[in-house]
Amino acid sequence: MATQPTKVAIIGAGTIGLSFVALHLMKNPNCTVTIYDIRPDLKEYMESKLPELLVDADVKECISRVSVADSLAKAVGEANIVQEQGREFARFKQSAWTQIEQHAPEDALFWSSTSGIPASEQSKYMKDQTRLVVVHPYNPPHIMPLLEVVPSPSTSQEVIDRTLEYWRSLGRVPVLIRKECTGFVANRLAFALFREACSLVAQGVVGVEDLDSVVQASMGPRWTVAGPFKSYHAGGGEGGLESFMDKIGGTVQACWNASDEDVKAAGLVVGGKWEKDVCRQTDEAYGVVDTAERDLKTKAVLEAVSR
Amino acid sequence: MATQPTKVAIIGAGTIGLSFVALHLMKNPNCTVTIYDIRPDLKEYMESKLPELLVDADVKECISRVSVADSLAKAVGEANIVQEQGREFARFKQSAWTQIEQHAPEDALFWSSTSGIPASEQSKYMKDQTRLVVVHPYNPPHIMPLLEVVPSPSTSQEVIDRTLEYWRSLGRVPVLIRKECTGFVANRLAFALFREACSLVAQGVVGVEDLDSVVQASMGPRWTVAGPFKSYHAGGGEGGLESFMDKIGGTVQACWNASDEDVKAAGLVVGGKWEKDVCRQTDEAYGVVDTAERDLKTKAVLEAVSR
Repeated sequence: MATQPTKVAIIGAGTIGLSFVALHLMKNPNCTVTIYDIRPDLKEYMESKLPELLVDADVKECISRVSVADSLAKAVGEANIVQEQGREFARFKQSAWTQIEQHAPEDALFWSSTSGIPASEQSKYMKDQTRLVVVHPYNPPHIMPLLEVVPSPSTSQEVIDRTLEYWRSLGRVPVLIRKECTGFVANRLAFALFREACSLVAQGVVGVEDLDSVVQASMGPRWTVAGPFKSYHAGGGEGGLESFMDKIGGTVQACWNASDEDVKAAGLVVGGKWEKDVCRQTDEAYGVVDTAERDLKTKAVLEAVSR
Repeated sequence: MATQPTKVAIIGAGTIGLSFVALHLMKNPNCTVTIYDIRPDLKEYMESKLPELLVDADVKECISRVSVADSLAKAVGEANIVQEQGREFARFKQSAWTQIEQHAPEDALFWSSTSGIPASEQSKYMKDQTRLVVVHPYNPPHIMPLLEVVPSPSTSQEVIDRTLEYWRSLGRVPVLIRKECTGFVANRLAFALFREACSLVAQGVVGVEDLDSVVQASMGPRWTVAGPFKSYHAGGGEGGLESFMDKIGGTVQACWNASDEDVKAAGLVVGGKWEKDVCRQTDEAYGVVDTAERDLKTKAVLEAVSR
């Protein structure tokens, strides 16, 4: 699909929108991108922010394939793909999709970058609810390969297939999530570990910076090469995961139990007293993080693992 | 410390023991290693297994610095470091340390690689309980940089300092854990995410292989470069983690709540019905994992991030 001319309409040009613009431009030489956003300085904003995302790319050539539309109707009028990352309110998205549906070509793909409002809710007032699918990135998408593809029960198989195919043809890692659920999969996993991290810090077992060191020197690199199931499967030797669970299952259960008790004991809910201390520790440790450096290192890591 | 002659005694030469042997030999050119293990074919076993761990090293030179002892007393008699990875039973370790204490030099460091039996329990019958500290690796230690250094309340500051210093001088990442707790920190974190992973698979939200893909294409590389606190701190922009929690806290809490409900609904305890299905899926996806290839890729990832 990346070899065919593709017209991409990006609706909502915040950080995530611009990152998607950069991704399409860099990975799909046959695409043009039209951006629509209500901000009045859209053109200047785009021209100042976009070049720094186009790392290792021909910036001038990329920029020559971007244009700015002054209405939603014009932005999507000839689109093959409409990708929305507007405000995270159901009503906003519902209204946007009914308008987009009126003006976009019949076979255009409709993608929402939402991190929480499922396609089934967003498509509620659409004439054709089979067209919409969530394509949730792991930020920033021009660096991180993952795209969670989350259909509603109404999304057509054809839309799912074309969506997966497009992202694969761009060398990304689209993963089909089989059921709509709170937070989808990536955030659910990350926040589960994050809760345990907050709990251990709240109890004084380890400091914020040391906890990050633990992860960076162990699970991070391990899970870059082999996800948790593959890792523990390898850990079980020839008997695989079953053998791992036979040997280590008692420890796993003991950790889960301790985790539940500690979370309760620390009163670990968002907004609790613990949060202030964790935020302070984090700020003292890192100040303002240089995300450009982080992204460059991430690229190097991704290149190393794909070799 | 790596620049001084170091005599290391390795007690228990299973997979972890041999990996530590390889680590000392490769990273500390001034060390000699003595191995003690009750297996009768220790010398042949060591000579056949060790060379494959000595990647990018002068195998012959490394092997020339290893010897095998025929008693615990002889193994530790002149040691500067005694590192134990025997059976995971408190009684075994308690008995081993009282013997080791009798025969080792007075200033030798005593380290246990245990993943679960705290130093306070292991040192119960020692004359000098200030000497023992847990040094828990993330396997295999000759590849993975993390070492969790977990003192008991009796461990002396000097022992802690010398332990951290040794590992730092070898370019590893020792992290001091401030309180003994179930599973220490790395496993607690990893198993929290693993529980959520099992729960999502048990509910049919995503398959085993796709879940691994999610992690490998998102959290893995991200957390290799910046741990969870630093990552979310960066995600909050100039306002840092506090601003992240203000914006995304609702979603975080919703994910935690959903997680608790789902874990309950799936009856997610070790040994439950879900486990069979997850093990089968994993086995079908991966067969026997090539850990040599995994370790090579992990090395490349670690080199990429440290550049």
